[in-house]
Amino acid sequence: MKRTVTFLPDNATVSVDDNANLYKAVKAAGVYVLSSCGGKGNCGKCKVVIKEGTVERGKSNSYLSSEEIKRGYVLACHSQVKSDLIVEIPQESRMQAKHKIATGARTEEIMKLMQEAGGCLESRISRVYLEISPPTIDDNIADYERLRRALDKAGFDASHLHMNYLVLTKLPHVLREGNWKVTVSAFNVGAVLEVLDLYPGETTRKRYGAAVDIGTTTVVVYLVDMTTGRVLGTSSTYNSQVKCGDDVITRIVYATERNGLKELQDLVVTNINTMLGELAEKNNVPPGMIDYIVAAGNTTMTHLFYGIDPQFIREEPYIPVATFFPLIRGKSIGFRIDPQAMVYSMPNVASYVGGDITAGVLVSQIHKQEAVSLFIDIGTNGEIVLGNKDWLVTAACSAGPAFEGSGIKFGMRAMEGAIEEVEISPKTYEVNYRVIGDVKPIGICGSGMIDILAEMYLCGVIDQKGKIREEIGSKRIRRGENGLEYVLAWRVESAINKEIVITEADLDNLIRAKAAIYAGFATLLSHMSMGFGDVHKLYIAGGFGRYIDVERAITIGMLPDLPVDKFQFLGNTSIMGAYYGLLCDRLRHEAEEIAKRMTYVELSVSHSFMDEYMSALFLPHTNLNAFPTVKRELEERKRPV
Amino acid sequence: MKRTVTFLPDNATVSVDDNANLYKAVKAAGVYVLSSCGGKGNCGKCKVVIKEGTVERGKSNSYLSSEEIKRGYVLACHSQVKSDLIVEIPQESRMQAKHKIATGARTEEIMKLMQEAGGCLESRISRVYLEISPPTIDDNIADYERLRRALDKAGFDASHLHMNYLVLTKLPHVLREGNWKVTVSAFNVGAVLEVLDLYPGETTRKRYGAAVDIGTTTVVVYLVDMTTGRVLGTSSTYNSQVKCGDDVITRIVYATERNGLKELQDLVVTNINTMLGELAEKNNVPPGMIDYIVAAGNTTMTHLFYGIDPQFIREEPYIPVATFFPLIRGKSIGFRIDPQAMVYSMPNVASYVGGDITAGVLVSQIHKQEAVSLFIDIGTNGEIVLGNKDWLVTAACSAGPAFEGSGIKFGMRAMEGAIEEVEISPKTYEVNYRVIGDVKPIGICGSGMIDILAEMYLCGVIDQKGKIREEIGSKRIRRGENGLEYVLAWRVESAINKEIVITEADLDNLIRAKAAIYAGFATLLSHMSMGFGDVHKLYIAGGFGRYIDVERAITIGMLPDLPVDKFQFLGNTSIMGAYYGLLCDRLRHEAEEIAKRMTYVELSVSHSFMDEYMSALFLPHTNLNAFPTVKRELEERKRPV
Repeated sequence: MKRTVTFLPDNATVSVDDNANLYKAVKAAGVYVLSSCGGKGNCGKCKVVIKEGTVERGKSNSYLSSEEIKRGYVLACHSQVKSDLIVEIPQESRMQAKHKIATGARTEEIMKLMQEAGGCLESRISRVYLEISPPTIDDNIADYERLRRALDKAGFDASHLHMNYLVLTKLPHVLREGNWKVTVSAFNVGAVLEVLDLYPGETTRKRYGAAVDIGTTTVVVYLVDMTTGRVLGTSSTYNSQVKCGDDVITRIVYATERNGLKELQDLVVTNINTMLGELAEKNNVPPGMIDYIVAAGNTTMTHLFYGIDPQFIREEPYIPVATFFPLIRGKSIGFRIDPQAMVYSMPNVASYVGGDITAGVLVSQIHKQEAVSLFIDIGTNGEIVLGNKDWLVTAACSAGPAFEGSGIKFGMRAMEGAIEEVEISPKTYEVNYRVIGDVKPIGICGSGMIDILAEMYLCGVIDQKGKIREEIGSKRIRRGENGLEYVLAWRVESAINKEIVITEADLDNLIRAKAAIYAGFATLLSHMSMGFGDVHKLYIAGGFGRYIDVERAITIGMLPDLPVDKFQFLGNTSIMGAYYGLLCDRLRHEAEEIAKRMTYVELSVSHSFMDEYMSALFLPHTNLNAFPTVKRELEERKRPV
Repeated sequence: MKRTVTFLPDNATVSVDDNANLYKAVKAAGVYVLSSCGGKGNCGKCKVVIKEGTVERGKSNSYLSSEEIKRGYVLACHSQVKSDLIVEIPQESRMQAKHKIATGARTEEIMKLMQEAGGCLESRISRVYLEISPPTIDDNIADYERLRRALDKAGFDASHLHMNYLVLTKLPHVLREGNWKVTVSAFNVGAVLEVLDLYPGETTRKRYGAAVDIGTTTVVVYLVDMTTGRVLGTSSTYNSQVKCGDDVITRIVYATERNGLKELQDLVVTNINTMLGELAEKNNVPPGMIDYIVAAGNTTMTHLFYGIDPQFIREEPYIPVATFFPLIRGKSIGFRIDPQAMVYSMPNVASYVGGDITAGVLVSQIHKQEAVSLFIDIGTNGEIVLGNKDWLVTAACSAGPAFEGSGIKFGMRAMEGAIEEVEISPKTYEVNYRVIGDVKPIGICGSGMIDILAEMYLCGVIDQKGKIREEIGSKRIRRGENGLEYVLAWRVESAINKEIVITEADLDNLIRAKAAIYAGFATLLSHMSMGFGDVHKLYIAGGFGRYIDVERAITIGMLPDLPVDKFQFLGNTSIMGAYYGLLCDRLRHEAEEIAKRMTYVELSVSHSFMDEYMSALFLPHTNLNAFPTVKRELEERKRPV
């Protein structure tokens, strides 16, 4: 028997079998619903409201408050369709339309930065305009040989000329269509000169490329005029893979155990295709003239982008299929723009340090400096690089995506409705907050979480271990269904007709996350027999990093207690590095050298990391002397530590 | 309205629209019918017999004898379906099951010949077995880098390693399936080491390849054990493209003006796929282990094989798209065997001198000899090479496919039912003939035609211009619908219930064809200021060449009047050369050098060719002194010339 399920507010309808899983129905309807686990049934995020009809609720109730249950909430993944349904996706489970996404420095600045980094406008793929002498009965060599001769004359070494089947097929027509005046796009691999594409007439200046940042959460695209280096347009969107899981591990599981590799690949390629298509249209760029795409992403994202099985990234000893991916044709992985376009990925270092970090180091330029610097990219994962012109070490701290909202009851990404700044009165314990978009709040984003931790700690609402001090007697402290919690926004203030709270479990998750990051810093330094005092600069990259209040992050012990002027925000270095590599083949080469130079330290098997981590599971740290600024502030507030 | 058409004897039924073209119905039913023009309506070959029902006959009658018309014959291409039909494909319009096809020297001899030509068992694609150390937490480089390192250790320069998307995708699984023992097949292009494929475990000796001769009329395949060089099996079939036209020009027209390029490509690739699949099965060769295919064919066949537009081959100044085709993947053009298999084509020289001729020169070894030799490949076309170790000149004589049966009223290829030998009594003008398969004749093949010309001339049935001498008063000479004709087989003797005759028009076509070949020889020699006396050897290659009686061919002036021991039959040098190139990369390279060295002489614009041709439009030649043997025989027969 078939059942009709209608999803509100989209009014999307889908026909499913009786007893179908409601989460699958949501996906089949093409509607978005929040989910961190990809429908595996253990994240408790895919809350929907049954407005009409009947479902079998499964284990929904164990993830829902009694009030939610009363109001018709179920978890889609635990529910079976038992009748025709009308289902509402409530606001907190929806993808928000307006959101804050960092696309890096302003595009006009990026070219300047690239030039300062030694970059130029010499891409891997070059174009050359040829005026070829037409064949005659006395000069009757074949088209292919004629082109070779013309390339030779133009100064290319075409003794190992190659073109793929598609180009060969169109060769005779392009030559004649352009009346033997053609533009050739070509690149070298080894001693081979590969003709990438051919165009009738002179098109050397109609040359476009795309830089892409494939974040676990966000995908950013720059459309670039390759002749001038100008960024014609930028676009960003949530990585549609999010619906299959919030973090890289869940996605690897989805790809391997749930046979979703192709689906994951399609999702992200479609994201890029869509953005690139829109950018091209908006800027009157013929899509067939976009012939080079450089992407940067973490190692798992790179594997998924290529449709390469990421299984062994997750299994000890954590081996990626490739760190340096070969140059491939975009059409192999589903690109719809120029079918001949080449795709390059910024080189990865190891399973948990990817091309986004190589790109980041390239942008930070720490690999050229005398002084030792730290580089950290705080996104869905946290990757750290320490080094200078002589050496580079790197590690990934499995901080988990807590600061992205995952595992936090009201956690969400930095989009409209997210509490992003919080102040707690040390006297009344009352709360002031600021919400992105100045609307009623629906949850808390990462910067809000740092604020909450810092404020609660400084005001004594929580102790050094992150436990709520019930004894202070605030009406905001109450015992919820999962233990003690602190009310940030009352029901009337919120947009979701519910109190927005932070629970002790949330606090615990956040402390674990910040401890992992700090322990990463500390371990890498001790690996090199150094201390924080040896660090000249600390560069913070990543979408999330952009909104961190450094002092607050020091307060909770996420960042080391260094003078504020040692911190520098770099923005989205992943997209910037991809842009560098796209335009300048010298910098692309430099990125490969960076990746080769980086020594990867596997923290998951490091005893010293475990020690550092345990010590960091306090606010700000078991050793308060390592945080003199925090110590001073606590003293100023005249509170016992 | 739909009409049902049933074709006998196959009993194949097809449903077509009322008024549909009957030739298209034949093709739609998947039934074979002879056609030289591909259904354009001007070859008069697609004769079928309407057994039941009605057709609109169109211009059929102008191609049919009154007797044929009476018996229900129509030309399929000129007929429109007007009712349900039962149509017989008469024997003379059918593809014969048993046929004589030359597959070259016996396979056990070929390896010896290759070795004598300096060949070895070092193919372009090599295999190496690697035992790779498995990854550990301390040695955690990516699979791709691990393979690169192992290849480096094994003595390959893997600094420019490449693998395509498919191989990359399977890399992690093959490595682990083989427990880090893998066999890599790889080849070099420029400085790039391309991993063609990967196999778990040790498969270095399970390596197979295919040599293919793509003739205009016949396709031959050798399945070769690449480790030993042994030819495991051979197979041949008619080139299915024949149904789209008999000769290269008709096929080019079919490809370009009739949009049939893809169809032509599919036809020949299907021929090869089918034969290769059967050979592999028969010899227990895993199809996935056939990773290299080397094909040789004329320039048009090579273009069609690749699906490359051959249009400009036919238009002055006669330019092919490529003479040296790049190495491509078999799957690009539809090969179903190993999807990774590479396809190479023996290099072409010009639009009308193809890879089959380069292969032939390689096999003949004339390019290494001190003395000057002539090489001729007489197939559907006639290509000639003259030269020695210092120089090579080549030309194509547009002899046309008369000796293949095209343009000859009862012409057919050398298959069962073909008259292959003819003797005419100089006294009674009665005929003795021998038929392939010792059955009742249905037509005349090339060697039969040479015999007929020679015998008719020597016996005085025709004069020096090929005109039938009605005055001799033989009952075999009669006035047919198209002028004078000579009856070779009476109706009761034939398998087609019709007299088999040779007409004056046929004789004219044959004389034109033989004249073109002879003029080709003469022009190339005079181009080098040489005469036939300077020719040390005359090598004859090609399926047709194998069955020529040299003395008879001299009699009609097709071959020059040289001592018989100067002629040497080489068999199918196209498949042999492909086999050389497949197994031995040094010989493949030698073939490329041969192709580069050959100077192409365009006869179609040569005045001296036209002069030679006009002089050769006599039997044997206007200058009988150039044919002393023939002169002597005529004198012995005491007949005035």
